[in-house]
Amino acid sequence: MLHACGGTDTNQMMEGDAAQQAYVAPGEYDEYYAFMSGGYSGQITAYGLPSGRLLKEIPVFSQYPENGYGYSEETKPMFNTSYGFVPWDDSHHIELSQTEGEFDGRWLFVNGNNTPRIARIDLKTFETVEILEIPDVAGLHCAPFITENSEYLVSGTRFSVPIPQKDVPIDTYKENFKGLINYVTVDPEHGHMDLAFQIEMPGFNYDLARNGKAISHGWSFLTTYNSEQEHSLLEVNASQKDKDLMAVVNWKKAEEYLEQGKFTERETSYFHNLMDEGSGIVNSTERSTTRILDPKECPDMVYFIPVPKSPHGCDVDPTGEYIVGNGKLSADMSVYSFSKIMQAIEEENFDGEFDGIPIINYEAALHGIVEKPGLGPLHTEFDGRGNAYTTFFISSEVVKWDVESKEILDRQPTFYSPGHLVIPGGETRNPDGKYLVAMNKITKDRYLPTGPELAHSAQLFDISGDKMKLILDFPTKAEPHYAQAIAADKIQPNSVKFFDIESNTHPHATMGESRSRVERNGNEVHVYMTAIRSHLAPDNIEGIKLGDRVYFHLTNLEQDWDVPHGLAIQGATNAEILVMPGQTRTLLWEPKRQGVFAFYCTDFCSALHQEMSGYVRVSPEGSDVPLKWGLNEELHNDEEAALDFQENARKLAHNR
Amino acid sequence: MLHACGGTDTNQMMEGDAAQQAYVAPGEYDEYYAFMSGGYSGQITAYGLPSGRLLKEIPVFSQYPENGYGYSEETKPMFNTSYGFVPWDDSHHIELSQTEGEFDGRWLFVNGNNTPRIARIDLKTFETVEILEIPDVAGLHCAPFITENSEYLVSGTRFSVPIPQKDVPIDTYKENFKGLINYVTVDPEHGHMDLAFQIEMPGFNYDLARNGKAISHGWSFLTTYNSEQEHSLLEVNASQKDKDLMAVVNWKKAEEYLEQGKFTERETSYFHNLMDEGSGIVNSTERSTTRILDPKECPDMVYFIPVPKSPHGCDVDPTGEYIVGNGKLSADMSVYSFSKIMQAIEEENFDGEFDGIPIINYEAALHGIVEKPGLGPLHTEFDGRGNAYTTFFISSEVVKWDVESKEILDRQPTFYSPGHLVIPGGETRNPDGKYLVAMNKITKDRYLPTGPELAHSAQLFDISGDKMKLILDFPTKAEPHYAQAIAADKIQPNSVKFFDIESNTHPHATMGESRSRVERNGNEVHVYMTAIRSHLAPDNIEGIKLGDRVYFHLTNLEQDWDVPHGLAIQGATNAEILVMPGQTRTLLWEPKRQGVFAFYCTDFCSALHQEMSGYVRVSPEGSDVPLKWGLNEELHNDEEAALDFQENARKLAHNR
Repeated sequence: MLHACGGTDTNQMMEGDAAQQAYVAPGEYDEYYAFMSGGYSGQITAYGLPSGRLLKEIPVFSQYPENGYGYSEETKPMFNTSYGFVPWDDSHHIELSQTEGEFDGRWLFVNGNNTPRIARIDLKTFETVEILEIPDVAGLHCAPFITENSEYLVSGTRFSVPIPQKDVPIDTYKENFKGLINYVTVDPEHGHMDLAFQIEMPGFNYDLARNGKAISHGWSFLTTYNSEQEHSLLEVNASQKDKDLMAVVNWKKAEEYLEQGKFTERETSYFHNLMDEGSGIVNSTERSTTRILDPKECPDMVYFIPVPKSPHGCDVDPTGEYIVGNGKLSADMSVYSFSKIMQAIEEENFDGEFDGIPIINYEAALHGIVEKPGLGPLHTEFDGRGNAYTTFFISSEVVKWDVESKEILDRQPTFYSPGHLVIPGGETRNPDGKYLVAMNKITKDRYLPTGPELAHSAQLFDISGDKMKLILDFPTKAEPHYAQAIAADKIQPNSVKFFDIESNTHPHATMGESRSRVERNGNEVHVYMTAIRSHLAPDNIEGIKLGDRVYFHLTNLEQDWDVPHGLAIQGATNAEILVMPGQTRTLLWEPKRQGVFAFYCTDFCSALHQEMSGYVRVSPEGSDVPLKWGLNEELHNDEEAALDFQENARKLAHNR
Repeated sequence: MLHACGGTDTNQMMEGDAAQQAYVAPGEYDEYYAFMSGGYSGQITAYGLPSGRLLKEIPVFSQYPENGYGYSEETKPMFNTSYGFVPWDDSHHIELSQTEGEFDGRWLFVNGNNTPRIARIDLKTFETVEILEIPDVAGLHCAPFITENSEYLVSGTRFSVPIPQKDVPIDTYKENFKGLINYVTVDPEHGHMDLAFQIEMPGFNYDLARNGKAISHGWSFLTTYNSEQEHSLLEVNASQKDKDLMAVVNWKKAEEYLEQGKFTERETSYFHNLMDEGSGIVNSTERSTTRILDPKECPDMVYFIPVPKSPHGCDVDPTGEYIVGNGKLSADMSVYSFSKIMQAIEEENFDGEFDGIPIINYEAALHGIVEKPGLGPLHTEFDGRGNAYTTFFISSEVVKWDVESKEILDRQPTFYSPGHLVIPGGETRNPDGKYLVAMNKITKDRYLPTGPELAHSAQLFDISGDKMKLILDFPTKAEPHYAQAIAADKIQPNSVKFFDIESNTHPHATMGESRSRVERNGNEVHVYMTAIRSHLAPDNIEGIKLGDRVYFHLTNLEQDWDVPHGLAIQGATNAEILVMPGQTRTLLWEPKRQGVFAFYCTDFCSALHQEMSGYVRVSPEGSDVPLKWGLNEELHNDEEAALDFQENARKLAHNR
């Protein structure tokens, strides 16, 4: 251990400073939330900055046994897709909602890469409340990039496929495979997503995108690779051409064509899954049509610009004037000028076209080249002081450079091979250029080893001075792909502490312990159960039979912060349910054998938590054991219950 | 931000010191691994101390979409139980393997509470390699407490049930419900677990346990609550008696009775799931008998000692002489003396019996009482310098006291309501009394809020001085229930970096890219696929038909540290597989519609990771599209493949 004071060694002093900078003392708060996509976990993690502490993993696209997400009856429909129930995905890009080019702290969007979807997380509750499938695309990597007033989430297909799908040889790629660029609207009041239109594009691999801001608002920029249109060994075959193409979309123009009816309506299938706020129940609906715009029919809507070589990152600076296109196999970085692009379009300074889409002359669009900045440039963020920061995967470094002059100002090693990086607000009009986090893809020896499977590593730099300074190295959950960070005060004041039980509209909610009961309907049994410290009601249940499907609807009656209750039943082929105060969640249990089985509260809620348990008796099919339930020896049966229930309902109505 | 140097404010100086103490500079390692049980996540988390950084979440009892654990064909059998496939559990107590009363760094054991099981994690790989179901118990909370040479994992039922299970009224509890104390052996060479015997006990709730060490080696101590034998509203009804009972088991005596054949063999059903080391495949076997010892038939094997009131924690000091029984509703703490217990047994100083089991006189067994230490004492660990540290749930504090004199030496608040606490080696013969971590059950305002569901909180204290000093506060994943911490150098040197591909005995491994192929067997299709930077082989597959069950067996050919590859296929109703170097994993895919679908590597493995993808063509049922596969236009079909395969097999045999 090093000592902060009295030392004469400069390294020790610097390390002491770094320790202070990263330290958030017990009881103090972090300054920023950093939301990191989980990559192959399909989830999102929320870290505090500068401490690097994992505040929460938010389940999004993948089942989450920890709280029953994707196992409870309320949340299972969140995974419905046109392919059926899909319990996993690969989440890559976080987008916080924006108002006038700044984060507003309302919602967070993230893509599902494998079975193409976009999810919305409500930042009041940190819950996934909506998932929209995107039809007829494959590998929705290039998503869900947001416009500066959250008008649209823009996405593109990473793998082109036959549209509509058909049984064709793979080597008919050039003839049969197409790409789509998709525009999803966000309802300004509730955040609900809707697929507005899709633009049919040549069969490339659409990789990353950003939307214009300020002067370039109304435009989208999407990098592509595989303009070779190869279909095998892309490592070699999609790296042939000296330049690939960046798509430039005028979406205000697209809106005009849409208005004019210049679209084709196509039959397809995709799912929209939306959580009802009052009940917490996800409703799933299948949709069957989509509106397609064809660039050949819609002039001045889409252009291409050449980008050297196998472009990956595509980033727009805070002024909206500069667009950085990073060719991951290129020795240099091309920086484009929005004004010059507009001028080139006006002057029709084109170098031919691809599938009817004009290709803007490379030099005409160029602001300039950052020469030999490093190897394998991937992604760029900005600090709002005219500087850009780019990650270099192969040479394992972050490089700071001046956007206007293209001059390189600083470079710092990262450990190892960074993918994305994030500066709080670094993609908005107003970055908060205090910290930078590099998200590294390779970890090796950075932490104590954990066998062959290692955490990825993140590195926190102080970028407030001229030179970047590494202050903290922290492991991250799954594969943080991209992250966005936001000042704590944009989220903290709106955070919901518990659900108001009076607003609980769940049809199986139990609004008070005296209304807890059990109802049978054929072989379907509904247990209306309540939890409050420190008992479940009812806690003795009899009359369940083999062959029954038993729905435990647990309502947490607490109205206080941080008092969840959970429910687990021995032998359930299901996860637990973890139920927040004021909420109702349902666990389906299909008993497999006769006997008496225990259930209990899974969240250590009070000093008598261990006592918060009960028994359910399972009798053979056809048994005449009557349905009975109770708490503390006060057993009820069906007939009494009907009376009790009416009595309670009267009381409740009277009390309201 | 505070400055470490030049300040005159004492608080600032102290905070500066704390920052330094908790700080692990980039590139440096933590001193300890702390393994925390996940509680209701069913997993284990490995944290570094003193940094509080989450190094890894190890999936154990619950499905883990992040790497395909519980979804891949190899790992699904890990969740087999006598109730069927159970995808979740609640893991409470971590036990590291011991040799001569010290951690040896070989294995880690943890209980599944809900559907009673014990899991073993191999600390060379940080993988769950074995799960053993425990029959005829419910709520295996009191588990898996280890003896000082890992002879046994001792456990007890938290909820007594009819044994064997039968359809009886719940209010026949006193007559029909029994408890079991279970002894599982650990094979000293391979770690394999086996259920040795079960002791049939009165129907109490067995809550926590510890085994003797040094002088008390050969004995187990298990707290119980609900000696009232109530079955409803335990919060009230199981808190009636002034004292409950601690079970004291002489397991060497039990071994003698076993040897003498004084057991009953009972028919039952439980599963043993064991991963084969060479193939990584889990094999699941059902077992059908268990050996029961009855204390009434086996004198001098089991005793009871009274413990005030609703005991929870039960902890043995490093000398093995003192046993702390914490009544969670008691104002005082009872400390027992092993020597006095032995003397009382010898003198038959009993206060009656319960179900034939003698109850040792309370005062005769007592070392002494720690008077009014706090409210709600739960758990105690030791620092090896004669001091004990106990958590108090209700008064939210950790209290340090002298084991010999029972004098209280220090108390520090915790935020809020601590459950367990951990000192590295704190339950062994040789604790490493430098740090203490309190695991708090209630978090509320400790971190930036994350909606109604909050992370739990852990607090790291420096206990090297006279007074405990809080140095760090960090959020934890799920509900860390208990933890054990071990010096890094006991694990780090043995950590496996990748699997030796020459030792891969998976029957569907592909030992070289040239052997990659596709085989059809009726409607079962096996894809023998390889991954190496930066392509999958084959990456074009045709001839798959609707109705097929397609097994993708992916072998990662890399032999380098930290180069996993993953595989995902669009629309799969399954998780990805994440495959470590040298390993083979299998993803089952049942295509739902015809067309051409993309698959790709999910782990960002190289600069050309985005190019690591492929296509699979799905034709209608009964189609005559032939089975073909290839890489870079070299397509193979069935007949060629048979020849190629023989040729490759010859070459491979020759090279060896």
